[in-house]
Amino acid sequence: MTVGTLPTGPLNAITDVPGVRVGQTTISTGELQTGVTAIVPDGFAGGLPAAIAVGNGYGKLVGSTQVDELGVIETPILLTGTLSVFRVADALLTWLLDRDPLATSLNPVVGETNDGHLSDIRRRPITPDDVHAALDSASTDLPAEGCVGAGTGTAALGFKAGIGTSSRAVSSGTIGVLVQTNFSGTLTVLGTPIPAAGDADPGVREMSDRRDASRGDDPGPDDGNSCMIVVATDLPLDARQVGRVARRAIFAMGRVGSDYAPGSGDYAIAFTTNRTPGFSDRDLRAPFQATTESVEEALLNSLTMATTTTGFQGHTAHAVSHDLVRSRLASAGTLS
Amino acid sequence: MTVGTLPTGPLNAITDVPGVRVGQTTISTGELQTGVTAIVPDGFAGGLPAAIAVGNGYGKLVGSTQVDELGVIETPILLTGTLSVFRVADALLTWLLDRDPLATSLNPVVGETNDGHLSDIRRRPITPDDVHAALDSASTDLPAEGCVGAGTGTAALGFKAGIGTSSRAVSSGTIGVLVQTNFSGTLTVLGTPIPAAGDADPGVREMSDRRDASRGDDPGPDDGNSCMIVVATDLPLDARQVGRVARRAIFAMGRVGSDYAPGSGDYAIAFTTNRTPGFSDRDLRAPFQATTESVEEALLNSLTMATTTTGFQGHTAHAVSHDLVRSRLASAGTLS
Amino acid sequence: MTVGTLPTGPLNAITDVPGVRVGQTTISTGELQTGVTAIVPDGFAGGLPAAIAVGNGYGKLVGSTQVDELGVIETPILLTGTLSVFRVADALLTWLLDRDPLATSLNPVVGETNDGHLSDIRRRPITPDDVHAALDSASTDLPAEGCVGAGTGTAALGFKAGIGTSSRAVSSGTIGVLVQTNFSGTLTVLGTPIPAAGDADPGVREMSDRRDASRGDDPGPDDGNSCMIVVATDLPLDARQVGRVARRAIFAMGRVGSDYAPGSGDYAIAFTTNRTPGFSDRDLRAPFQATTESVEEALLNSLTMATTTTGFQGHTAHAVSHDLVRSRLASAGTLS
Amino acid sequence: MTVGTLPTGPLNAITDVPGVRVGQTTISTGELQTGVTAIVPDGFAGGLPAAIAVGNGYGKLVGSTQVDELGVIETPILLTGTLSVFRVADALLTWLLDRDPLATSLNPVVGETNDGHLSDIRRRPITPDDVHAALDSASTDLPAEGCVGAGTGTAALGFKAGIGTSSRAVSSGTIGVLVQTNFSGTLTVLGTPIPAAGDADPGVREMSDRRDASRGDDPGPDDGNSCMIVVATDLPLDARQVGRVARRAIFAMGRVGSDYAPGSGDYAIAFTTNRTPGFSDRDLRAPFQATTESVEEALLNSLTMATTTTGFQGHTAHAVSHDLVRSRLASAGTLS
Repeated sequence: MTVGTLPTGPLNAITDVPGVRVGQTTISTGELQTGVTAIVPDGFAGGLPAAIAVGNGYGKLVGSTQVDELGVIETPILLTGTLSVFRVADALLTWLLDRDPLATSLNPVVGETNDGHLSDIRRRPITPDDVHAALDSASTDLPAEGCVGAGTGTAALGFKAGIGTSSRAVSSGTIGVLVQTNFSGTLTVLGTPIPAAGDADPGVREMSDRRDASRGDDPGPDDGNSCMIVVATDLPLDARQVGRVARRAIFAMGRVGSDYAPGSGDYAIAFTTNRTPGFSDRDLRAPFQATTESVEEALLNSLTMATTTTGFQGHTAHAVSHDLVRSRLASAGTLS
Repeated sequence: MTVGTLPTGPLNAITDVPGVRVGQTTISTGELQTGVTAIVPDGFAGGLPAAIAVGNGYGKLVGSTQVDELGVIETPILLTGTLSVFRVADALLTWLLDRDPLATSLNPVVGETNDGHLSDIRRRPITPDDVHAALDSASTDLPAEGCVGAGTGTAALGFKAGIGTSSRAVSSGTIGVLVQTNFSGTLTVLGTPIPAAGDADPGVREMSDRRDASRGDDPGPDDGNSCMIVVATDLPLDARQVGRVARRAIFAMGRVGSDYAPGSGDYAIAFTTNRTPGFSDRDLRAPFQATTESVEEALLNSLTMATTTTGFQGHTAHAVSHDLVRSRLASAGTLS
Repeated sequence: MTVGTLPTGPLNAITDVPGVRVGQTTISTGELQTGVTAIVPDGFAGGLPAAIAVGNGYGKLVGSTQVDELGVIETPILLTGTLSVFRVADALLTWLLDRDPLATSLNPVVGETNDGHLSDIRRRPITPDDVHAALDSASTDLPAEGCVGAGTGTAALGFKAGIGTSSRAVSSGTIGVLVQTNFSGTLTVLGTPIPAAGDADPGVREMSDRRDASRGDDPGPDDGNSCMIVVATDLPLDARQVGRVARRAIFAMGRVGSDYAPGSGDYAIAFTTNRTPGFSDRDLRAPFQATTESVEEALLNSLTMATTTTGFQGHTAHAVSHDLVRSRLASAGTLS
Repeated sequence: MTVGTLPTGPLNAITDVPGVRVGQTTISTGELQTGVTAIVPDGFAGGLPAAIAVGNGYGKLVGSTQVDELGVIETPILLTGTLSVFRVADALLTWLLDRDPLATSLNPVVGETNDGHLSDIRRRPITPDDVHAALDSASTDLPAEGCVGAGTGTAALGFKAGIGTSSRAVSSGTIGVLVQTNFSGTLTVLGTPIPAAGDADPGVREMSDRRDASRGDDPGPDDGNSCMIVVATDLPLDARQVGRVARRAIFAMGRVGSDYAPGSGDYAIAFTTNRTPGFSDRDLRAPFQATTESVEEALLNSLTMATTTTGFQGHTAHAVSHDLVRSRLASAGTLS
């Protein structure tokens, strides 16, 4: 199965972007299915051009207004479960303050999705050590995908989901993507819908009664809610241009069947490791295509790499069957 | 072929929304292939809750900042070709001033896409009479689709395109959509890609050399550029909520294969005819789905209802073959 | 001294808005000069129409994107010092989770300014108990002003500053304001500049060498940085309209001499306790004026109610002399 | 009278920015008091980094969404009266198309304020020749101020107003400003309020009955409405940074007494002639101060340079008396 037409990077991962490392801490102990994923770019402390696109702002993203104003991230980017987001941001502060004895102002960027169906989210189980372990273990290796880090307890499109990554090479650099998936809709692979079992009418899957717009309580198995997308590049884009890239990441969610539900927190954070702006907007077509393809593939990977998981209150999220996907694609003539 | 699962309105058109009328003027005379499409809601003069979503702002949309500030449209919405947009806005002023002898401030909302490949756009051929004819002929009938009005000279996804419309009924009202299509990508019908003939590598179709980000010159046959989407409803949404609807209209462009190119002006204008707000955000899932389905179908209709057209400098845009679509869908198992 | 022409509410405080309570915890122990201020509106859990205006986004405001999307706050609003913002947000979660055994998603709104000149900010001294004490002690009394709560260690316009409040009555309701002041510029009272002592050339007061845009280190005595403004009302405004109010709060900072410095985090959060929208934009002139007057007076109160404070590393911020203000206003003919 | 502490440029005008020219066409014939002001920067056709700040979006500004997306202006900037804005934009297209035989897409930037109290605005009297005359006559001379060009028929703060300009030198370049003033409030000169004659209670000056939020009819003599501010520089700022500058221009309106009324269209367009980005945000303090001072002085100049004007239906707007200003400043001790 090939997504798109551009070549992937060597690892087909966000870590193909030079200087970008990933570290993850996974908590998987019955009632707790959660964790932390850290994206650590070299040179973050000096500020890297960055932007955040909000697809649907029903989320608790930390750090957005300063990124909007100054056009830079100045810390690693962390992902976690909803109610742990502030503990994770505070632990990131601790890690940064330890490294910079003069710092008195820092703008952590931390995203989240709600893993409360599989994990006892109200416990807020992530400790500072968990966060520091993710940061300290960050490496340029291929990141683990599926039920790992911030994706340990998430589900998307009716199936168990989690972390996914992918990359594409363009003539002058690389686009790399890492996602944390937890959103609703009908899984669509290369154009072929693959509804989850028991999903009689996937198009009108309603949010559960307990959940409402002002409360946002426990997302049921059909709900899913939210998607965090991190896009890294080494192209010499400025903050406005990475913002244009970030919006394409949001648009790409539709390719795998997102229904862009009203209760979802869908955000894309894009940054470049290249501080020397000098890219023409007329050359953005290839980076946009690379973003679209990388996001689509990373989203699919987050599902296909996940495994069936049982957690909080015995809730189970089933992994998508690879055989099912293959047979559906074969029927559709999409597999060669 | 059925798009989605929700029922359509009686006409499957934007005019299914009570009080919404459409009128069009078509100019098709060899070198000129252009026109005007008017969406005329009852009660516009009193202000109707409205919002504009910008997918990609490479366009000359008239009227956006006041809509953002006040959350209302106060005029009909007009669509036309790029270089005629100000003449059309001025002609709309004339029409409005004639109807309101006291008015000294009005905020026309006029969108455009670039029909310069098939039409001699530099002539700016739209006259005040053309605009007034569109406005005065507006009716609640099923609007003509394809090569008509503002869609007379447009092309999208490698094929001749134009105007399309569709609607969906939800429990408490209707969502109706009208589109003017002129954007790039690979036509995708219910998940099946249908590349245009001679489109060896549709994914990397580059913008022509003559076009650049700061100039935006003549879009070639492969370029297409821009999409205007108008979403009407009679649901009691406020301006913020119709803004959320408008963003879903942008997201839906991906379903038919838009590549969200950097040189595109992709805008959705959403409004409600219902001035009494009182809709809970928790109930937006159905209106969002109705918007997604209506936009997808309207976009497809704009292509399937268009006919092969030859215009400026002998340029030709070919209509998509219905047989081709059917055979591709049959192969994919998508046609029942 | 009278600011503006509209009548104040009974207390001339944000608590004049029915249902709005304020509680504060003050930490003033030598090296630590910081605290928490809580604005607690009745009915927050059901969602109150709200908006955030960003004057200059160099700040760590928690909660903005969800407020933008849904147009509501669903928690009390807390203010504190910069590096404590995530601990405070997490403590607010604890308080809320204790009150709602089903909640699994909540969007705290927490603002901050940097009190690192007078307080050992890197210690992050605010405890959950401090936060809960502020929330639990919230009352409808006149809030304490000056060196209290989140204003314990702040300075503005060259003088010791802190918390200020004010209100104005309009025909159909009340506008109430509470501010946490920590910004640079030249104190201006009713149009008369009152430069701080030793401020030879107030207009070109530069940021200290140690501070930079990507680091934001210790703001020196001349810097100040940031202003949080909370605007409450009981007028039946919707989220878009309170957003228009919030922008006027930012504009009003100029009236007391803010220089809107590039390193400042200037935010206004406006909300209404009235969930029934139905206010015409044409009637906003009085609420705008009430906002402008209340903010101007609250900002002045935050300085005139403050007292000289010595804190971290022996740094001292001097309170503005009331005699000096009176004499300068008398010279200018502004005092009657 | 000196505004601020920074040195002005040689002309104290926007034309102090190298490569920036200004041309104006004035129509002053009894019932018609209107015109066009053109700001023509060298190199516009290649795109100049630019941004637009919206203080209050009740206006018909042409060109905003593309400037937001691409971060450039690609045409001169024109100012005129409200109902003529589209005719002026179209005439600008004509001028540009004549100069570029290949152009098929252009994004005019045209601002307006409502001069309908002194001028018969419904006639839309500006002709293409008027626009071309303004463009073709553009020079680097000191622009005329007061009742000229787009300011011929405007009034602000209770007095006749019009066009004003000013500039400030900073270490590495120049900030130049040109304004078209037409907004309400109480004239304030260096902190001293100077209410217009007969203005019993300037703070609560209400909009006239005939004007409403959705209609915006004839602004009466007390209303004024809208302010257009153009900021030019040769500093090497990128689009995000000129956007930060533009917001300071809006903030500076308060310094002369703007009440930021709900019916006002207050916009700042900022651009740089320097296409090589490379300016640190930490160095923005001086450009911000220069912008604040230039805007304040340009706004004042627009009033002090204006002369009493009688126009449409015999309406008269009185120029502010220089003697009155001097005596009020002397009383306040502000004049040396």
